[in-house]
Amino acid sequence: MNLKMIARIQGYVLLCLAALLTLPLLAGLCFHENVSCFLITMGVAAALGTALVLCFRPAATDLYAKEGFASVGLAWILMSLLGALPFVLSGDIPNYIDAVFETASGLSTTGASILKDVESLSRGGLFWRSTTHWIGGMGVLVFLMAVLPLGEGRAMHIMRAEVPGPTVGKLVPRARKTAVILYLIYLGLTVSETIFLLCGGMSFYDALLHAFASAGTGGFSTRGASIAAFDSLYIEMVISVFLILFGINFNLYFLILIGRAKDAFKSEELHVYFGILVFATLTIAANIWRIYGSFGTGLRHAFFNTCSLLTTAGFGTEDFTRWPGYSQGLLVTLMFIGGCAGSTGGGLKLSRVMLLVKTAIADLRRMIRPRSVTRVQLDGRRVSRETTDAVYSYFALYMLLLLGCTLILSLDGYDFATNFTASLSCMSNIGPGLSLVGPSGNYSIFSPLSKVVMTVIMLCGRLEIYAMLILFIPSTWKKR
Amino acid sequence: MNLKMIARIQGYVLLCLAALLTLPLLAGLCFHENVSCFLITMGVAAALGTALVLCFRPAATDLYAKEGFASVGLAWILMSLLGALPFVLSGDIPNYIDAVFETASGLSTTGASILKDVESLSRGGLFWRSTTHWIGGMGVLVFLMAVLPLGEGRAMHIMRAEVPGPTVGKLVPRARKTAVILYLIYLGLTVSETIFLLCGGMSFYDALLHAFASAGTGGFSTRGASIAAFDSLYIEMVISVFLILFGINFNLYFLILIGRAKDAFKSEELHVYFGILVFATLTIAANIWRIYGSFGTGLRHAFFNTCSLLTTAGFGTEDFTRWPGYSQGLLVTLMFIGGCAGSTGGGLKLSRVMLLVKTAIADLRRMIRPRSVTRVQLDGRRVSRETTDAVYSYFALYMLLLLGCTLILSLDGYDFATNFTASLSCMSNIGPGLSLVGPSGNYSIFSPLSKVVMTVIMLCGRLEIYAMLILFIPSTWKKR
Repeated sequence: MNLKMIARIQGYVLLCLAALLTLPLLAGLCFHENVSCFLITMGVAAALGTALVLCFRPAATDLYAKEGFASVGLAWILMSLLGALPFVLSGDIPNYIDAVFETASGLSTTGASILKDVESLSRGGLFWRSTTHWIGGMGVLVFLMAVLPLGEGRAMHIMRAEVPGPTVGKLVPRARKTAVILYLIYLGLTVSETIFLLCGGMSFYDALLHAFASAGTGGFSTRGASIAAFDSLYIEMVISVFLILFGINFNLYFLILIGRAKDAFKSEELHVYFGILVFATLTIAANIWRIYGSFGTGLRHAFFNTCSLLTTAGFGTEDFTRWPGYSQGLLVTLMFIGGCAGSTGGGLKLSRVMLLVKTAIADLRRMIRPRSVTRVQLDGRRVSRETTDAVYSYFALYMLLLLGCTLILSLDGYDFATNFTASLSCMSNIGPGLSLVGPSGNYSIFSPLSKVVMTVIMLCGRLEIYAMLILFIPSTWKKR
Repeated sequence: MNLKMIARIQGYVLLCLAALLTLPLLAGLCFHENVSCFLITMGVAAALGTALVLCFRPAATDLYAKEGFASVGLAWILMSLLGALPFVLSGDIPNYIDAVFETASGLSTTGASILKDVESLSRGGLFWRSTTHWIGGMGVLVFLMAVLPLGEGRAMHIMRAEVPGPTVGKLVPRARKTAVILYLIYLGLTVSETIFLLCGGMSFYDALLHAFASAGTGGFSTRGASIAAFDSLYIEMVISVFLILFGINFNLYFLILIGRAKDAFKSEELHVYFGILVFATLTIAANIWRIYGSFGTGLRHAFFNTCSLLTTAGFGTEDFTRWPGYSQGLLVTLMFIGGCAGSTGGGLKLSRVMLLVKTAIADLRRMIRPRSVTRVQLDGRRVSRETTDAVYSYFALYMLLLLGCTLILSLDGYDFATNFTASLSCMSNIGPGLSLVGPSGNYSIFSPLSKVVMTVIMLCGRLEIYAMLILFIPSTWKKR
């Protein structure tokens, strides 16, 4: 284990965090608020970061897979722990465990909140809360790769740990350039959404923060009533469309940018993604429209909430815990699936679910004809047994963590639907669940132990389990 | 596809069914009831069976794996469809879909019931209902193997389809003799339990039927209040202990019978089985004792319900939907796990869950040290990648079916906890679930569509998916 190199990377991450804190600092200054909480945190992060970078000068700068994963896992824990400081120092969220939960929920783009009254937060605090979504959506280490002179092999391992999906390919031969391209697409989409929201009459502050939260498919809003507070069909449509865009594999945008749009539109995952969106919207609309008196209103709410939950953002316009059983059941199913691979959406990732179903069917066919070669294909290409095994393995870990989390949460004594959907919501980085953690509820009801467990589970969900779990395996820390 | 051979096997199964119906016929006669419903069904089954056996004389009597699976799947559907007739003819369950649900629930040893008033059934009807548990526990085709002169290869394929667990081994070199031994152990345990229950003051009728239901880990009782109706600690203890015994791999009894008890007690699955029983009993007791005023009473209810749900019987003494969240969460977890492989218990089977966890951890370790060989071991022996892949594949299919069933059930408009635990209960062959399908509820609330889906899911759970799903794949029915 190249501990020195890992420590040095943590130093860079902390320096990056200090730099990012200038954003809420500026926001706080604009609103004439006390910004000492940000200044102190910046000071701590910068001092610690500088110390780590100066003290650890590794002889070998190469990085094996496990070191890449461990670096990413540690960095996200560190960011959650330090990023929570401004909330505690400003008194916005006095309890440190609550503050860490909220920060990890932001960074992991979950959007689950312990806040009972969002509007009572300082403007700078709210800004930081939503900024964590934007940072977490694409990943801070992918950002570091884009700006720091890291070696190629090292960069690839970090990318594999932070970019979601069953396989990670480079867009261009160099991983660093790939990171730059990904961030530029991300930035471009965020700016576009901000402009569209401004056109809908939102203030610049609200528009930017909702764009941040959409970009990461996070779901934090500046209002307690979430998107319902704006009561605007235009704003709902803009956010829905951008959520759909952020839930698509970013590789497809790259293909379009280099003039290979035809290839992009051939993506099997994309077809299924839109198929699910259409199917869920229409059937939920048919299921709920009577509640709202007109099919149009039913369709509107069905479309927004389908987009919000499939892309794992979790923005709210309606309390779907009051919808009929079918709508709730389907929304929970969407919560398992999540966005496309290589997007900022959470969940199992659509292509992984597709591979899971295809492999299970192929295995079934193999029982009928043991000697025939049954191949799993995606986008017309054969998928290796190694990849499908990894999908099986990921699914098993996902479900085991989900059930384990449900069991620990149940110690608090709430009902099964609350515990199960809260765990699922954290694991899939969504935000709301059913029963007590529905759109009108929040996570303040849980005990400190449950909050800590959910914090870990949210980070597990965002980093696709391995980068987090690897930290808890003793053999990770053995010397090479 | 050797269709003639499959048809001939169905004929034998129907003849066997006709013979088995003499049991409830005799019971009905003892209670001076009208037994025409059994006579008519016996006539139909015998006529159809004879016709099939006489008409189909296959040139080749060999059987490939897929034919073995298809034979088993078809036979169980046929038995459910015909076994439901007595209920309809007697008027005990006038609705045919309900009657098929109840019969499939019996045969699959689920014990989920659509009956609102169990005691209003005829004594012969109740006898048949519990007898289906006993038939389903060990499997009717395994019985056929024991009594009919089937070829070796053929017998093995049938055994693999009907005996639960990740791997099926023969106890003795000949599959037929293995079947005889399994049935003798099964019979011996059932007779012992009947005697013990008689000693507790139960009538012969009640003792026999509860022994049948325990043997198959089914859960149908002759009383609406289930075991609580007897209000006897002795009876609860007898049933608990026998449920534990029926939830153990029958291979271990064989080892004990041939004097290799030491090997039997070394079984890793057995240790984990008892570990789970102790852990769940003690923690649930600690969680619920305040409700009952004394730790002793809490322990009593915790022990019985842990045994009842882990072995997937689903007998009831208390309404655990009123217990605190932790107890409910843990009981749901037990519902996933189920009994040991090669027992009559349902669920995923303990050894499969153990392999799932071990393989997931091994895969995680492989990420840390890609070049090292990480081996999964069970009982000190290395488990092949083929077996662990099959476990992954089974788990994926299990979860996909569970979620699919939940989604279809949600069309009826009930809450998520009801739909999810009803599906889990059917898939794991348990009986009760949470919310509306708790110990004091029943399955009559569901629509006919949901009942049909749950009937299929119960059979899928009992036959470990493949034997049922294979029937729905078109390529199964192509000619060789």
